[in-house]
Amino acid sequence: MADSSSSLDAVLAHVDAQLDDSVERLFALLRIASISTDPAYAGECRKAADWLANELDGLGFDASVRPTEGHPMVVGHDKSQDGPSVLFYGHYDVQPVDPLSLWVHEPFEPAIGEENGRKVILARGASDDKGQLMTFVEACRAYKAVRGALPVNVTVLFEGEEEAGSRSLGPFLEATADELKADMALVCDTDMWDSETPSIVTMLRGLVGEEVVITAASRDLHSGMYGGAARNPIQVLGDIVASLRNSDGSVAIEGFYDDVAELPAHVAEQWQRLPFDGAAYLGEVGLGEPAGERGRSVLEQITSRPTCEINGISGGYTGDGFKTVIPSQASAKISFRLVGNQDPAKIREAFRAHVRARVPADCSVAFSSHGASPATTIPADGTFVTKALAALTDEWNKEAAIAGSGGSIPIVGDFKRKLGMDSLLIGFAQTDDRIHSPNEKYNLESYHRGIRSWVRILDRFGQT
Amino acid sequence: MADSSSSLDAVLAHVDAQLDDSVERLFALLRIASISTDPAYAGECRKAADWLANELDGLGFDASVRPTEGHPMVVGHDKSQDGPSVLFYGHYDVQPVDPLSLWVHEPFEPAIGEENGRKVILARGASDDKGQLMTFVEACRAYKAVRGALPVNVTVLFEGEEEAGSRSLGPFLEATADELKADMALVCDTDMWDSETPSIVTMLRGLVGEEVVITAASRDLHSGMYGGAARNPIQVLGDIVASLRNSDGSVAIEGFYDDVAELPAHVAEQWQRLPFDGAAYLGEVGLGEPAGERGRSVLEQITSRPTCEINGISGGYTGDGFKTVIPSQASAKISFRLVGNQDPAKIREAFRAHVRARVPADCSVAFSSHGASPATTIPADGTFVTKALAALTDEWNKEAAIAGSGGSIPIVGDFKRKLGMDSLLIGFAQTDDRIHSPNEKYNLESYHRGIRSWVRILDRFGQT
Repeated sequence: MADSSSSLDAVLAHVDAQLDDSVERLFALLRIASISTDPAYAGECRKAADWLANELDGLGFDASVRPTEGHPMVVGHDKSQDGPSVLFYGHYDVQPVDPLSLWVHEPFEPAIGEENGRKVILARGASDDKGQLMTFVEACRAYKAVRGALPVNVTVLFEGEEEAGSRSLGPFLEATADELKADMALVCDTDMWDSETPSIVTMLRGLVGEEVVITAASRDLHSGMYGGAARNPIQVLGDIVASLRNSDGSVAIEGFYDDVAELPAHVAEQWQRLPFDGAAYLGEVGLGEPAGERGRSVLEQITSRPTCEINGISGGYTGDGFKTVIPSQASAKISFRLVGNQDPAKIREAFRAHVRARVPADCSVAFSSHGASPATTIPADGTFVTKALAALTDEWNKEAAIAGSGGSIPIVGDFKRKLGMDSLLIGFAQTDDRIHSPNEKYNLESYHRGIRSWVRILDRFGQT
Repeated sequence: MADSSSSLDAVLAHVDAQLDDSVERLFALLRIASISTDPAYAGECRKAADWLANELDGLGFDASVRPTEGHPMVVGHDKSQDGPSVLFYGHYDVQPVDPLSLWVHEPFEPAIGEENGRKVILARGASDDKGQLMTFVEACRAYKAVRGALPVNVTVLFEGEEEAGSRSLGPFLEATADELKADMALVCDTDMWDSETPSIVTMLRGLVGEEVVITAASRDLHSGMYGGAARNPIQVLGDIVASLRNSDGSVAIEGFYDDVAELPAHVAEQWQRLPFDGAAYLGEVGLGEPAGERGRSVLEQITSRPTCEINGISGGYTGDGFKTVIPSQASAKISFRLVGNQDPAKIREAFRAHVRARVPADCSVAFSSHGASPATTIPADGTFVTKALAALTDEWNKEAAIAGSGGSIPIVGDFKRKLGMDSLLIGFAQTDDRIHSPNEKYNLESYHRGIRSWVRILDRFGQT
């Protein structure tokens, strides 16, 4: 054990000693303008993929660039061990940079800056996701440099279309399922709990999207001729929207909470202790009062509790000025965030039944589905989770958090459905990293200790 | 009396004998493409004004074309009598004709056709409003031809911007108030009760328009990050919309019905007798069930009862597909049709108070006014009304109806406010005249008996 511990220390010391080189390599990747949504940058995407494959190759991975109908995938294997296997996922593509005028530095000329006394890496993709994926690459580099070999079998998958809808990902995973399947997926594309507290996201809410169109009269009517007697579909829709929520903020659809479990006791207890300022979280966007279920904290409302949200509504005249129209139709886009064992199909049907029961006799309703995914929950006491939590706690000298994500992260569902594999979401980004916005940054500490965190995690995974 | 009656008969006989010429004159006016909204037709509008002034001049009116900032007005006076004075209003401009491909005849090449066994005049403007205004001109022509002089003092006002917002009308009325003011205004721009029953509109609903904007968060939010805890302004707006109506279809705003009177007994009694098929009226636009106040007929709901309608609603993502956004704002355009003595300012304030009481603490609401006009009611037992009803009943051999208009008719408000003058709305159009649509028509009977109706009305007005 003394030997194992001291050799881990040697790997970590190597990380520290080589940090400048690690930053230089990240800068080289950041200089590639791999914007995936704009066809003009397809060559840059290919360049980033080549660059990554070359790096992995240099580390002794069996690495290759795999063409798709869109931007290529990068796959690398280092499977020399007897132990468990992991699949690490990141994406090398980045968001567009406009408006360019708001950038202080050129987005593809990375630089070290300083913010609030912390060193930061400034560039498009510094945080999302080039900086994050490179923490893992650099951890592998240090581990192999000091120990000669990785402690577990590692496959790396880098995607180039994450910011553009991941169109090629599904087919690619299906075609390479046997090759990519591992005991656990590791995804580095999330935030820390706060700047001092590492976290693993083990709960992701699912989603059901529905579009509802209410039709009343066979054509738009003039309210001077029909106003009073004609059914107004906006009024009908308003009545339906109002009926979806109880006055205590809970969702009023029958059976909606049937398959919603309470948080595991140790997670609930941890959330009581962990710093999270709900008032500040809402205050930052100009809100003062949690609007969800009464008696639930803001943290629960945004991560562990299900929701019903109206995401769009439209009907009648919405331009400048006024028209006294009674429209024929009105429509709304409504989504549900799901948790626990809520079944998307069952929730969708319960919603539709709720609406149908409220549509007057001379109106019709049409529904369209917009996606359905169940919530994802990784048992918080599994071996990989327990080891990763311990490794993160060691590195950050602070109890690592079990976290939930209020939104779905599609790759997790894809890995589950297509490869039958759970995912651990471990990331070192901060909420103030300005991802998708001008002046994106990644804390130098996130990068440095992110690398060290992966060294510790891989090391723990390798221990029996 | 025998003399008066027989000379009226002579005028009516003249109308009958000269009908072909009357139709020919209307055709000449219909051939002028006086589309007011399209600047390309400004010359045609001027031409129509000149044509009308010339006709009036030929009848012995002191007629002139009056320039405005838009299309000109035509004013003609025949004030040789001691008796009462009337101001007759019509408009010579017409709606655009597109889509031209749907017209069976060229819109500005008038023709006589046949529909359901009736002869019809086919042309843009045949009904709205050239055919209607010419009924009055031709009545004056016949009266003067047979009797030498009109029985009352007549001023005629023809507008050329009615289909384009009547921008010049207000300033023109203010500038010519002394010249135009009469004992009663006559407006020929409305429908008959049905094809056999003439009517006078004596009640017009007023209107209050309001735009409501609810603001919650300081920016649009992602429902994956904030969904559950963030106040959703669409939900708030839905709750407000739902709160505006009681389950019996009545408006739920406090004090809304305070100044609403019941119909005069003789009108209520007449409405019981008159043919009006509420089910057919709604059925024509695909509706089956009156949506207004329970216990009120469709006719009451659309004319004599006040309403609250949502004319537009908008918030969040309304394009194709789906976005899980929680918008910062949502807005609605809401209007109230007013009756009786409802005060627009009081109704507006009651509505705003109703909304403010329902806006959560961390939301703000902004209101904008979009027009306010009180209801207009001409006492149904006044001298002019009584005489006109009798004249119409004589001509059509059917009791003339006292009618309400569900929508406001701006000219009536203008005459009241700027000239202190009530208006009688007497028209001979039919609901199937396709005004504003391709293949507009005017029943030849409407034209013929419309001329005869005005002869009788003027004659009655001239009797002491």
